[in-house]
Amino acid sequence: MSPAHQHSSISPCTTFLLLCGFLLALFPSLFVSLTWSPWYYFFPPPTAPAPPVPCRAPNVCMSQASTMSWTQKTITLPSKSRGSYLITDHIVSSLPEISTYKVGILHLFIQHTSCALSLNENWDSDVRADMSDALDRIVPEDKKGEGLYRHDAEGSDDMPAHVKSVLVGASVSVPITDGRLATGTWQGVYYLEFRRAKHARRVVATIQGEKM
Amino acid sequence: MSPAHQHSSISPCTTFLLLCGFLLALFPSLFVSLTWSPWYYFFPPPTAPAPPVPCRAPNVCMSQASTMSWTQKTITLPSKSRGSYLITDHIVSSLPEISTYKVGILHLFIQHTSCALSLNENWDSDVRADMSDALDRIVPEDKKGEGLYRHDAEGSDDMPAHVKSVLVGASVSVPITDGRLATGTWQGVYYLEFRRAKHARRVVATIQGEKM
Amino acid sequence: MSPAHQHSSISPCTTFLLLCGFLLALFPSLFVSLTWSPWYYFFPPPTAPAPPVPCRAPNVCMSQASTMSWTQKTITLPSKSRGSYLITDHIVSSLPEISTYKVGILHLFIQHTSCALSLNENWDSDVRADMSDALDRIVPEDKKGEGLYRHDAEGSDDMPAHVKSVLVGASVSVPITDGRLATGTWQGVYYLEFRRAKHARRVVATIQGEKM
Repeated sequence: MSPAHQHSSISPCTTFLLLCGFLLALFPSLFVSLTWSPWYYFFPPPTAPAPPVPCRAPNVCMSQASTMSWTQKTITLPSKSRGSYLITDHIVSSLPEISTYKVGILHLFIQHTSCALSLNENWDSDVRADMSDALDRIVPEDKKGEGLYRHDAEGSDDMPAHVKSVLVGASVSVPITDGRLATGTWQGVYYLEFRRAKHARRVVATIQGEKM
Repeated sequence: MSPAHQHSSISPCTTFLLLCGFLLALFPSLFVSLTWSPWYYFFPPPTAPAPPVPCRAPNVCMSQASTMSWTQKTITLPSKSRGSYLITDHIVSSLPEISTYKVGILHLFIQHTSCALSLNENWDSDVRADMSDALDRIVPEDKKGEGLYRHDAEGSDDMPAHVKSVLVGASVSVPITDGRLATGTWQGVYYLEFRRAKHARRVVATIQGEKM
Repeated sequence: MSPAHQHSSISPCTTFLLLCGFLLALFPSLFVSLTWSPWYYFFPPPTAPAPPVPCRAPNVCMSQASTMSWTQKTITLPSKSRGSYLITDHIVSSLPEISTYKVGILHLFIQHTSCALSLNENWDSDVRADMSDALDRIVPEDKKGEGLYRHDAEGSDDMPAHVKSVLVGASVSVPITDGRLATGTWQGVYYLEFRRAKHARRVVATIQGEKM
C-alpha cells in the first residue's frame, strides 16, 4: 500500500464523530442541553420563578437595597407619678439596634394623652423638678373652682395634663449618626408625666435608616 | 499488512488521551478546576466572604429593595373657624395607602402658621373645647389694648394664633404598624384652628415605610 | 513499511490543528471571541454605556433600590443672642442636596436645650419680635425673687430657656416635594434663641427620601 492510502485510514465516520465532538466541545451549553434533554422530557423542570442572577452589578443593587432598614418595637416605661424623668439610658438599652445604623432617625411616640416626650438638660435634676412646676404654672389646675375646665370626670389634674401634652408633644425624633444618637452633650430624652397617680406608659420606638 | 491492522495504528493510549481531552473540553469548569488545583493546594483561596452571586436568593434581595416606599399627597381639611377638631377619620380615609405599609411613619404637616396639628384625647368633645380655651388663656389676645403685640395688621387674633402655632407645632408624626396607625386607644389627630374666621387648611401627608 | 512508520501517518499539520481545536474547546470564550472578531472588526459594538442588564427586572430592582437615600450634615447657625430668627435661606443654601430628592423629609435637630426650632410666619419681622416677647410672658424669668426656679446656676434666663425649649421643641421636620421644601407660602423655619448671651448653635440636618 502507498502511504497516501494509509492516510485515509481514518474512516469518514470517525471524522464525522470527531467533528461532532468538537462542535459539542465548542458549545458547552449545547452539550449540556442535549445530555439532559431525555431526562427533562420525562421530568420537565418547573418554569423558572426568577432569573438565576438578578443583579449583574452586585455592589449597586445589593448594598443600596439591603442597607435601608426599619426597626420597630414597643417599650414600656417604668411606672411613675407626676414629674419629669430622664429616660435616655432606658431607651438606648432597650434599642441595641441603634448601634447598627450608620445614619438614621429614632422616632419615639408615647401612646397616651396626659404625658409627653421631650428633649432637655440631662445633668441637673433641679431642671426636671423646675420643668414640672413651670408647666403647672402655665397650665394650672382649677383649684379655686373657677370653672376653668369642662372635662373633669377623670380628676382635676386630667384636663391640665391634656393641655400640657398638646404643648410639649407626644413624640420626639432624634438623628442617628454612626450608630449613636446625635444628641448634644447636655441633651437627654425626657418623659414628662402629668398625672398624679402612677402610670406605666407605652412608647412605640421606630428606627429607620441606612445600616452600617 | 492488512488495512484492518493499519486502522489500529492509533494506539489505545492515544485513544484514551483523546477521550480525556474530549471529556475535559465538554466540562470546562472541570478543566479549570483541575488546572488550578495544584496552585490552590499550596495557596488556598480565602474562604469566600460572600457568594460570587450576591442575589442567590432573589426573593430576599429583591423584596428588601422593592418594599421601601414613599407616598405623598396634599389633603385639604374641612373649612373651620376657631376650635379643636378631631381629624383622624378624615386623614385615614384620605390615605388608604396606610394599610399597605407593614412598618412606617405617617408625617402630617400643615402649611399654615396660625393653626396647628397635635394628638390628644379622642373621646370627650369637652376636651377639645377646653383645649382651645386653655390655649387662649396661655396666649391671650390684647383685648384691653395693653400693647402686647406689634403685629396686628391681620386682626387681633392673628399674632396669638402664631404663638399658639409655635407652641403646639405644625406637624405630627405617627408610627404605622401592620397597616394601621399605632396610636393609643384614646389618641386622635387634632387640627387646632386659632383664627376666628373660617379657613380651609392644607396638610401635606407623607408616608414612608416598608410595604407589606 | 514498518508499523512505527505507519504511526506517523497522522501528519504534523493535522496534529497542530487538533491541538488548536482542543485549545479552543478548552477555552470557550476564546473561541467565541475569535469567531466574532471579523464581524466586530467591521461593525464595532457600541461602547457599553452600562452593564448589559443590571437587574433582569430593572424597574423593580435597580431604580427602586438606588433612589432611596439619606443625607446628613451638621450646620452651625450664625451666632445670635435672645430673639427669633428666620433661617430658611441659611438652611436651604447649606443643603443643596434637597433639590435632588423627588419626595422626602428634611429633619432639623438643634443639639441644645435653651433654644428651639419651629416654623412660622416668614414676612413680618414684628412677628419674630412678638414671638420672643410672648414666650417671655408665658415662661417669665424670676425677676422679683419669688423662687420660681431651683436651677439658677447658669443665670436667671437659663431655666426659662429650658422650659421654652420643651414647649417649642428641638426639631422640625418638613416634607420635600420635587426638590423643594413643601412649606406654605408664608411659612419659614425659625431659630428661637432664649439666652441673652450670644450662642453659636449646631443643627443636625437629616434628609431622607427618594431621589429624582
